Amino acid sequence: MPEVIFGQGKTPQQVADIFQRLAAHGGNVLATRATEEQYAAVADCVPAAEYRPLARAIVLKRDRKKHGKGVIVVVSAGTSDIPVAEEAVVTAETMGNNVQHIYDVGVAGIHRLLAHRGALAKARVIVVCAGMEGALPSVVGGLVGVPVIAVPTSVGYGAAFEGLAALLGMMNSCASNVSVVNIDNGFGAGYVASLINRK
Amino acid sequence: MPEVIFGQGKTPQQVADIFQRLAAHGGNVLATRATEEQYAAVADCVPAAEYRPLARAIVLKRDRKKHGKGVIVVVSAGTSDIPVAEEAVVTAETMGNNVQHIYDVGVAGIHRLLAHRGALAKARVIVVCAGMEGALPSVVGGLVGVPVIAVPTSVGYGAAFEGLAALLGMMNSCASNVSVVNIDNGFGAGYVASLINRK
Amino acid sequence: MPEVIFGQGKTPQQVADIFQRLAAHGGNVLATRATEEQYAAVADCVPAAEYRPLARAIVLKRDRKKHGKGVIVVVSAGTSDIPVAEEAVVTAETMGNNVQHIYDVGVAGIHRLLAHRGALAKARVIVVCAGMEGALPSVVGGLVGVPVIAVPTSVGYGAAFEGLAALLGMMNSCASNVSVVNIDNGFGAGYVASLINRK
Amino acid sequence: MPEVIFGQGKTPQQVADIFQRLAAHGGNVLATRATEEQYAAVADCVPAAEYRPLARAIVLKRDRKKHGKGVIVVVSAGTSDIPVAEEAVVTAETMGNNVQHIYDVGVAGIHRLLAHRGALAKARVIVVCAGMEGALPSVVGGLVGVPVIAVPTSVGYGAAFEGLAALLGMMNSCASNVSVVNIDNGFGAGYVASLINRK
Amino acid sequence: MPEVIFGQGKTPQQVADIFQRLAAHGGNVLATRATEEQYAAVADCVPAAEYRPLARAIVLKRDRKKHGKGVIVVVSAGTSDIPVAEEAVVTAETMGNNVQHIYDVGVAGIHRLLAHRGALAKARVIVVCAGMEGALPSVVGGLVGVPVIAVPTSVGYGAAFEGLAALLGMMNSCASNVSVVNIDNGFGAGYVASLINRK
Amino acid sequence: MPEVIFGQGKTPQQVADIFQRLAAHGGNVLATRATEEQYAAVADCVPAAEYRPLARAIVLKRDRKKHGKGVIVVVSAGTSDIPVAEEAVVTAETMGNNVQHIYDVGVAGIHRLLAHRGALAKARVIVVCAGMEGALPSVVGGLVGVPVIAVPTSVGYGAAFEGLAALLGMMNSCASNVSVVNIDNGFGAGYVASLINRK
Amino acid sequence: MPEVIFGQGKTPQQVADIFQRLAAHGGNVLATRATEEQYAAVADCVPAAEYRPLARAIVLKRDRKKHGKGVIVVVSAGTSDIPVAEEAVVTAETMGNNVQHIYDVGVAGIHRLLAHRGALAKARVIVVCAGMEGALPSVVGGLVGVPVIAVPTSVGYGAAFEGLAALLGMMNSCASNVSVVNIDNGFGAGYVASLINRK
Amino acid sequence: MPEVIFGQGKTPQQVADIFQRLAAHGGNVLATRATEEQYAAVADCVPAAEYRPLARAIVLKRDRKKHGKGVIVVVSAGTSDIPVAEEAVVTAETMGNNVQHIYDVGVAGIHRLLAHRGALAKARVIVVCAGMEGALPSVVGGLVGVPVIAVPTSVGYGAAFEGLAALLGMMNSCASNVSVVNIDNGFGAGYVASLINRK
Repeated sequence: MPEVIFGQGKTPQQVADIFQRLAAHGGNVLATRATEEQYAAVADCVPAAEYRPLARAIVLKRDRKKHGKGVIVVVSAGTSDIPVAEEAVVTAETMGNNVQHIYDVGVAGIHRLLAHRGALAKARVIVVCAGMEGALPSVVGGLVGVPVIAVPTSVGYGAAFEGLAALLGMMNSCASNVSVVNIDNGFGAGYVASLINRK
Repeated sequence: MPEVIFGQGKTPQQVADIFQRLAAHGGNVLATRATEEQYAAVADCVPAAEYRPLARAIVLKRDRKKHGKGVIVVVSAGTSDIPVAEEAVVTAETMGNNVQHIYDVGVAGIHRLLAHRGALAKARVIVVCAGMEGALPSVVGGLVGVPVIAVPTSVGYGAAFEGLAALLGMMNSCASNVSVVNIDNGFGAGYVASLINRK
Repeated sequence: MPEVIFGQGKTPQQVADIFQRLAAHGGNVLATRATEEQYAAVADCVPAAEYRPLARAIVLKRDRKKHGKGVIVVVSAGTSDIPVAEEAVVTAETMGNNVQHIYDVGVAGIHRLLAHRGALAKARVIVVCAGMEGALPSVVGGLVGVPVIAVPTSVGYGAAFEGLAALLGMMNSCASNVSVVNIDNGFGAGYVASLINRK
Repeated sequence: MPEVIFGQGKTPQQVADIFQRLAAHGGNVLATRATEEQYAAVADCVPAAEYRPLARAIVLKRDRKKHGKGVIVVVSAGTSDIPVAEEAVVTAETMGNNVQHIYDVGVAGIHRLLAHRGALAKARVIVVCAGMEGALPSVVGGLVGVPVIAVPTSVGYGAAFEGLAALLGMMNSCASNVSVVNIDNGFGAGYVASLINRK
Repeated sequence: MPEVIFGQGKTPQQVADIFQRLAAHGGNVLATRATEEQYAAVADCVPAAEYRPLARAIVLKRDRKKHGKGVIVVVSAGTSDIPVAEEAVVTAETMGNNVQHIYDVGVAGIHRLLAHRGALAKARVIVVCAGMEGALPSVVGGLVGVPVIAVPTSVGYGAAFEGLAALLGMMNSCASNVSVVNIDNGFGAGYVASLINRK
Repeated sequence: MPEVIFGQGKTPQQVADIFQRLAAHGGNVLATRATEEQYAAVADCVPAAEYRPLARAIVLKRDRKKHGKGVIVVVSAGTSDIPVAEEAVVTAETMGNNVQHIYDVGVAGIHRLLAHRGALAKARVIVVCAGMEGALPSVVGGLVGVPVIAVPTSVGYGAAFEGLAALLGMMNSCASNVSVVNIDNGFGAGYVASLINRK
Repeated sequence: MPEVIFGQGKTPQQVADIFQRLAAHGGNVLATRATEEQYAAVADCVPAAEYRPLARAIVLKRDRKKHGKGVIVVVSAGTSDIPVAEEAVVTAETMGNNVQHIYDVGVAGIHRLLAHRGALAKARVIVVCAGMEGALPSVVGGLVGVPVIAVPTSVGYGAAFEGLAALLGMMNSCASNVSVVNIDNGFGAGYVASLINRK
Repeated sequence: MPEVIFGQGKTPQQVADIFQRLAAHGGNVLATRATEEQYAAVADCVPAAEYRPLARAIVLKRDRKKHGKGVIVVVSAGTSDIPVAEEAVVTAETMGNNVQHIYDVGVAGIHRLLAHRGALAKARVIVVCAGMEGALPSVVGGLVGVPVIAVPTSVGYGAAFEGLAALLGMMNSCASNVSVVNIDNGFGAGYVASLINRK
């Protein structure tokens, strides 16, 4: 298991101090919701750390062994959902998994999703990120026979209520293989998916 | 336009009295949310009235002219959504439209919906009824280029909150051709669809 | 159908890049929720694009044919609702419709609305934008026999809850010809109205 | 001031006992939310008490002097709002006021309301009861220059949420002369109106 | 009646332009939610206008006749509620009323409120502003026999939810003479109180 | 500490079986939310058990020692709050406390509450039960310098939302000595008060 | 995969008809939310079906092969959560898993849970059912390194809001290995757990 | 009792003026939610005042007598909850109590909490601060037989809804010795705990 820091609300110095301390344990380290300023502070003391800007994550990857037995597929509905999806990707990779992503396959263009049926069918577990009406996990769930981890995102406006609409939609999914994590919690989804995929 | 009675909460005698009075105007009459008891009372004084049990509607159809220029398609997600869908069907028929229905095509079995692409493509306007996550209107909306009237239903349990989850989902639809009516308001959807379809 | 970009949250360069790419398809292009900065970036690479400041929209209009058969009327309650109403106007115009607007006719001054009965009666479809209590669609709906697309706006304070009060009011409209789109979604309303008005 | 009993949830015997005790004070007595069974028990010990079934109220009226200086007008939107409106009427009458009512003038048929402009213009204070979208107080408020007491009712279904939609609508009224009481609180509205109308 | 401008969200120039235009009608003019910058712009073109900083209001008072027959008392719970209370005071004064205020009499120090019983007893109508639990209107309502207009304020934190807790509390007041206006709506409360107090 | 059973939703036989088993431990036993039918079943096997109908509680009191050092005062606002208040009383008595109650002292009749200042001043801890706007704990809290346990009740209608309005009001109390338990949780309040009052 | 019927809201005859039809496919059949009446109707036509009263489930188990590779542990907080937990147990067993249950280990008696650490440590996946504050999944999640499926139940009263409090609690779990299904959705949890546990 | 100022939203000069005035009464003074700028202004006129940065509090401690008879223990779940916990600590210390704190003992690492059982067992009253799912008070409550004051914090994101999830969780605690104060109200918790702990 990697050591994990939740970067949001911390100063660059705080993140760097914790990161350095955790790095001393010898394993992988992951800082989520991290800014470029936080990365600069981390890189000063842990030069091997990398920044993944789309995922807003700092990663120190030393254990590069594959711990997962199958492929984790991360799917997202719209362009604005990508940061959350990438957080799931980085988390799952840092935990030793083969990860594929399928982005921009919202339900209003169902053919785009269906074009990826082959990749979906090969997954051991799927993470699906969607905002607005949060309908994508139900459709994906219906296409496969593996667990689907749904991540509501705060993407949308008006009656999206900062992700509440997507969260309620996913809780009520008519596909039986869907479970849900918190709004924008790409890390949690990647973490649960990694546990499912473990050898 | 038909004369319309909202049956819920009225006694059989009240429904019968109003029905008879409206029937005297000479046009079509429709009572929604009507029980068999209410129908029995209506039939006593207006024998030509028919009961449509699935739709829970009493209909007196005298004007049988077609006022609609195209086909209205009514789609529903699950078996429990059918009463709401049928209310839309009966409303649109009473207003002089050709109506087709496509039932039991929830998004978790997307192939069942896609098998009806031909019928959907021929519609002038589509009504989509769904409870739980309310995702079906977005998928249908993405398949066609005509207006979609979405009806959230109170089907579901737990975090469905009596249709609130479906309503919020539909308000946030990522398909641009979707507008929404009240929870379980099959009548309103059939009515709006009929106005859109008018010659 | 025009190509559409949701400008909010994108950098000027991102908007300009997408706009230019979509413009290459040869049809009309519309960017909604767009700032003047975004427009400046777009104008650099697509000089024919125009900015509509009230609507916060960038428009490239090349197909100037009328695709709508009747008139779309866009109504708004208060001065603060005008940006949303104008977004509906620009959308419907870009989709080839004759559009009229009637602004500042809130329900607390009902005579101002009634002075426009003639214009309302000639509409094929009406868009109504209102914040606060969101009552205007019900009144307009009662005056006409055509579909009314209601747009709740986030105008108001306190118990308006960013448009929630208006949204709930419109969902419960006592006029049967009203359907509703998301809070502040002038684009969606103009889009649905255009589909209804199509030849 | 009359003595007042809230009948709901009390046994007939409890209502009768309290009623008799209050009647001994010599003034008017009013029991709201009262059933016929409660009335039967009251009538046994206070034969002069009357039952007003529409208002679900028991009234003992001994002080028949006029305490109000003007006319109170009670307006309601739909048939189902009448019990609440009648509770306001009975309350205001029991408190010594001239009361007129104007029923079934919902905003979707604005001409029906406007036909009563004369009566509205003569009121010293107006009570307006409406469920669903709760739009009527704003329209009435805009027609007059006197205080309007708005009563949201629990009439409606789905997104009406037992009167919440109407309550929020009324709180956000764009008419400045509107204040609001609790859902279904016809008594409170009649009481406040009577205090405003006092000589 | 004064002419009224809602200043919030408008530029100083917009406020000044509207103010000047309304001032041309010859009566009193009131701008609420107004900043000092807006006042500076107004003062340039209407030098007789005054700024009331506590109330955040710009006032042009030309009609100084008393239109009210009694005294309006404005009560507030805490120091942070004073801006809302002062908005009510300025509104009622601009509409020609004698106004007294009683501030800082929250229910947790009930003796401070009771020390003002004499002043409360002389009021024709009372405005009560309170945030947090919004309990003050019920206590004041129980002390007097005149209408109480309750104004929930957005004062508080956490479960105050921007005034929602106070609003719900006031809607459920156990005092029968209380009606409620929108959160922070001091203007509306002063306006309704003035109508009640009119000769 | 007494052994405690939550009676609601259990069959009389289930309550009797658990009661008998707990009684075998030798201490006091308390069953809350208990019906007369449940009591009859308990009395069959534990004849020493008593039923307290107002509190809806079954009590087996064998340890009659005083464990509390001061007096617990239980206050309630209206008649309908008494069952919850009595549950607190019975709980505190069963836990070995001197308990006094002060009922029917809602904030709209503040003099009734103030008449009990002497008794309040002698309390070591106070439980306050109130529904509707839930204002009573703040007023009581301001009169004393001891902890106040507030119990919102589900008493009220409309915007009371089954106790939510009272709960929010109490969470926002402007008196610093107030903490809150769940809606209708008289047992919890009596329990916490007893722990505070322990020698 | 078993064939599944959601029994709630269906007549005994409807359940029996669907059950018989699905049984004809030759695999396992599961009816959830089923009453004894529904079971009687099913048993008439499918005598091999069994009723599991605690789980409210009808099961026809023909495929008795183990499809799961590890043990699924189902944990519940209180006695009232057992029906939901048993639904998860029956679902997982019907899908071919070894299932253990640990009941009545709510967080307020943490030692009872800790006594089962050995069993928890051997699980491949854990289902945790809890109502009220829904805290148990976080504690269990912290004790193990495998996926935890959390099921909020509608157990509780007052501010439990029919399971909403538990649902929100679980969505915000501070343990990274927790994902959540709908309120009372024991079936969904057992289903997801089975997919995770598959060979 | 100390004199108390709520610093948030006040200018440094306002805080300094009130602080100086209250200091003149001769007792302890406490300013909560205070910034360093506010402290600088206070220190200018009351040099003996100290700033506690973690607690965001300014303290003037002159009465250093112990008024509490036992120990108050303040527990917090995560690092981000510490400011709220420290506010409770400073409040209780200013009111003359021995206070111990136990930080960073969230329920997902239950062994860290259990390592402090000895300290918890010696407390006369315990304050527990937690955000996210708010589960810690239930676990602590189950370990001890003294009152637990729970403070929900606004720590978390997404479905934490600014502390609402934690608040609801704590209201529904399955431990009977828990009562709750407002979100982030460390002051209130420290105040109530001090009253409980008084000699």
